[in-house]
Amino acid sequence: MQNEIFIKMVLDAWEVYVKRTGDLFNELSDIQIMKEVAPGRNRGIYLLGHLTAVHDRIPGILGLGDALYPELYGPFVEQPDKAATNLPSISDLRQYWKKVNEHLSEKMKKLSTDEWFQKHSSVSADDFVKEPHRNKLNIVMNRTNHLASHFGQLLYLKARKE
Amino acid sequence: MQNEIFIKMVLDAWEVYVKRTGDLFNELSDIQIMKEVAPGRNRGIYLLGHLTAVHDRIPGILGLGDALYPELYGPFVEQPDKAATNLPSISDLRQYWKKVNEHLSEKMKKLSTDEWFQKHSSVSADDFVKEPHRNKLNIVMNRTNHLASHFGQLLYLKARKE
Repeated sequence: MQNEIFIKMVLDAWEVYVKRTGDLFNELSDIQIMKEVAPGRNRGIYLLGHLTAVHDRIPGILGLGDALYPELYGPFVEQPDKAATNLPSISDLRQYWKKVNEHLSEKMKKLSTDEWFQKHSSVSADDFVKEPHRNKLNIVMNRTNHLASHFGQLLYLKARKE
Repeated sequence: MQNEIFIKMVLDAWEVYVKRTGDLFNELSDIQIMKEVAPGRNRGIYLLGHLTAVHDRIPGILGLGDALYPELYGPFVEQPDKAATNLPSISDLRQYWKKVNEHLSEKMKKLSTDEWFQKHSSVSADDFVKEPHRNKLNIVMNRTNHLASHFGQLLYLKARKE
């Protein structure tokens, strides 16, 4: 019973930040998304691709199948902003963001309570015995914090209308 | 057993972001902390006071005693940046940040596993029956996301050396 409560706490917080960030992307124009979030820092387009690529890796880590757009990982995670040429269009990235998060939500709904407390694919069986908190649910909690930190930055684009 | 694991997951994530943010404040000069995080946005001093004031409210919400510096709540939470006059000095705020988080960590260590899953003081007993995820641990999880979102913003001060 308490396990179900804890899973709900973590997934609710995840969905709240995915929704807030998605609403923010919808509110921002393509022109705003092409701006730097603050002078000399990442552009909105980079953070849009970055969050999409990071979320698209989560199914793999949870044992729920492959990424939809693995080609995003290089230019938006391994490389810093402005290093890659030929980025996807903002319009395509907006679609990928939606598809990746919808796909992930559907996949996550299929995990049982017990499965959420099993180890994720980035931890060895031996380490998991010593560190049982490194379970699948912990991945979602950590990715929520990652999303929240970039959401805080993306908020600054709202004022960048010029 | 699994309850202890959840509690560890949530408290570890909290401590990670408190440490990251504290290390960042230590790294920033007083001059940098007086800057706006991005043009026209909150100054570092406001976010330092804001996070301190929000964290100082957590013991009260968890039933662990009063805030140490309740006078911070008005100028740093109820009012926006630059509205209040006579803010504390940065040097005092740096001390308050440390004291508030140390005090909170000590208090939180005293909560038993069962207590973490009891309702917090901002939810009624009736609502808690319907929404048992609104427990004390959920407060810490939500405040971690709040902290992460401002941490992402504060990172921008590192480049503001002028």
